Amino acid sequence: MTDTVTDLVERARTGEARAIARLISMVEDGSPQLPDMLSALHGGGTAYVVGITGAPGVGKSTVTNALITAYRERGDRVAVLAVDPSSPFTGGALLGDRIRMQGQAGDSGVYIRSMASRGQLGGLAAATPQAVRVLEAAGFDVVLVETVGVGQSEVDIAATADATVVLLAPGMGDGIQAAKAGILEIGDILCVNKADRDGAASTVREVRQMLQLGGNRDGWKPVVVTSVAAQDAVADLLATLDDRRAWLGEGDHLVRRRRQRARGEVLALALGGLRGRLEERLSGAHLTDIDAVAEGSLSPYEAAERLIAEDDRMGS
Amino acid sequence: MTDTVTDLVERARTGEARAIARLISMVEDGSPQLPDMLSALHGGGTAYVVGITGAPGVGKSTVTNALITAYRERGDRVAVLAVDPSSPFTGGALLGDRIRMQGQAGDSGVYIRSMASRGQLGGLAAATPQAVRVLEAAGFDVVLVETVGVGQSEVDIAATADATVVLLAPGMGDGIQAAKAGILEIGDILCVNKADRDGAASTVREVRQMLQLGGNRDGWKPVVVTSVAAQDAVADLLATLDDRRAWLGEGDHLVRRRRQRARGEVLALALGGLRGRLEERLSGAHLTDIDAVAEGSLSPYEAAERLIAEDDRMGS
Repeated sequence: MTDTVTDLVERARTGEARAIARLISMVEDGSPQLPDMLSALHGGGTAYVVGITGAPGVGKSTVTNALITAYRERGDRVAVLAVDPSSPFTGGALLGDRIRMQGQAGDSGVYIRSMASRGQLGGLAAATPQAVRVLEAAGFDVVLVETVGVGQSEVDIAATADATVVLLAPGMGDGIQAAKAGILEIGDILCVNKADRDGAASTVREVRQMLQLGGNRDGWKPVVVTSVAAQDAVADLLATLDDRRAWLGEGDHLVRRRRQRARGEVLALALGGLRGRLEERLSGAHLTDIDAVAEGSLSPYEAAERLIAEDDRMGS
Repeated sequence: MTDTVTDLVERARTGEARAIARLISMVEDGSPQLPDMLSALHGGGTAYVVGITGAPGVGKSTVTNALITAYRERGDRVAVLAVDPSSPFTGGALLGDRIRMQGQAGDSGVYIRSMASRGQLGGLAAATPQAVRVLEAAGFDVVLVETVGVGQSEVDIAATADATVVLLAPGMGDGIQAAKAGILEIGDILCVNKADRDGAASTVREVRQMLQLGGNRDGWKPVVVTSVAAQDAVADLLATLDDRRAWLGEGDHLVRRRRQRARGEVLALALGGLRGRLEERLSGAHLTDIDAVAEGSLSPYEAAERLIAEDDRMGS
């Protein structure tokens, strides 16, 4: 079995798309061979990992597409991970691969993949850095991680990127909606897409004002740019991504980002493991406690404390 | 100190808005008095808890407003919790209270509150059921929980509601965007709002088709309705919410929902507690392991296992 993983990793290193796909599927499925795989991946290259997020409708796929084209023109090899939130029903990316970015088909310097977490340990917050490792080993220069919507998982995934681009669009409720959605704060770069539409200037203005409430992140001051991705007009965004990359290269910024990514990955895995353990205990003897909480005769805090204490006592 | 909490709970039971507000602030802040508070709240009423979710721009606040009006016309007392994802920067609901639903001001049968989790134990997944308890004790008949966007936290919060309404709007990328966002699956009721706009019928059709991939939830078959909330046209939605409520009253459905809510709350609290412990350990001796993972000389799985083992050994 280990031979197979080593073999797959060897083939992925040569850029073979099928081997890359198999390895990422193993990540998604939480394969028992993952530890072996991650050891075998050790010593891969280093990609520039760019998170791209924003509400539905702002043009995430269009921007991603335009960035692929721009990076390809420079000769960079580009991979895309399109991350869908874990769906409790379907177990994942419903239509992802079918409808995405067909314009890039046939270019071996481009790899595009929808990703879902099929209830796997640590969820997407753990799986995304692992898939990035696969792509780094396969020699991609840039990995674009496209995430849907907002929420805690977006924040966790943003923590794994070297640069996080938050996309906005004019007339979608403007800055207020973005602030409500709590996504401005995770952006290293805020990009107002569809900037040829009415209201773009006022959206830029609002976003700038809101940023003044926020401030710096590790010494990087968030930058507001505009794009018209549908016309491949992403030059400002690309230049700012270059600035960010150069900035990461100075001092210990990059080392700190990588440490932060590792920390998030380990924490997500550990919490995933503990969650599994707790869920098992909740189905067992602890069921009467849950009934008591539901009926109001036991406080949820007490129940949680008892659950943790039981878990401490029994360990793994 | 306990007297104060008991006093606050007494005043909340009479419907005093300031006491309710203080108690919910204690929930948000993760006050050390929370366990006392939850004991004091024991034996409150039972509200019908309705989750309302959907991407920015579909009209969540407008639908919420129209539902408030409709329930008030029946004489029901209505509370609204507007839940914002925890923002790592500002610690919360940036503009919430200011911009919301001013039309309902001055009606004592309506209580509206923006809610944020200020890094509190278990996050919003634990805080929301606690705030619901406060509102139930205060005698509200209906609690509308409005959540922003999509993601794991939305799924967790949906698990606490008696009914979850997923809002969609025509022309926002239609059903495909919704499916990408993974929110269709959490809806007991799927409501196509702005149904007077072009494309509403095709959105309804698409949603119906997608639902066929999904199926039942605990025996409830998801229902697709339409609304024009800006004109207070929410009769179908309201009727379906009534159907759902009646359905919950049959057999053991309601008991099972309440148990599920208690289970989610306890799990979120326990995981929050363990997360805090793990984060502390990660800042301590475990830092060298994180460095090793960042450098690639240690697998993240091994690091996570070592972290859990250490946590088991040391306990609380």
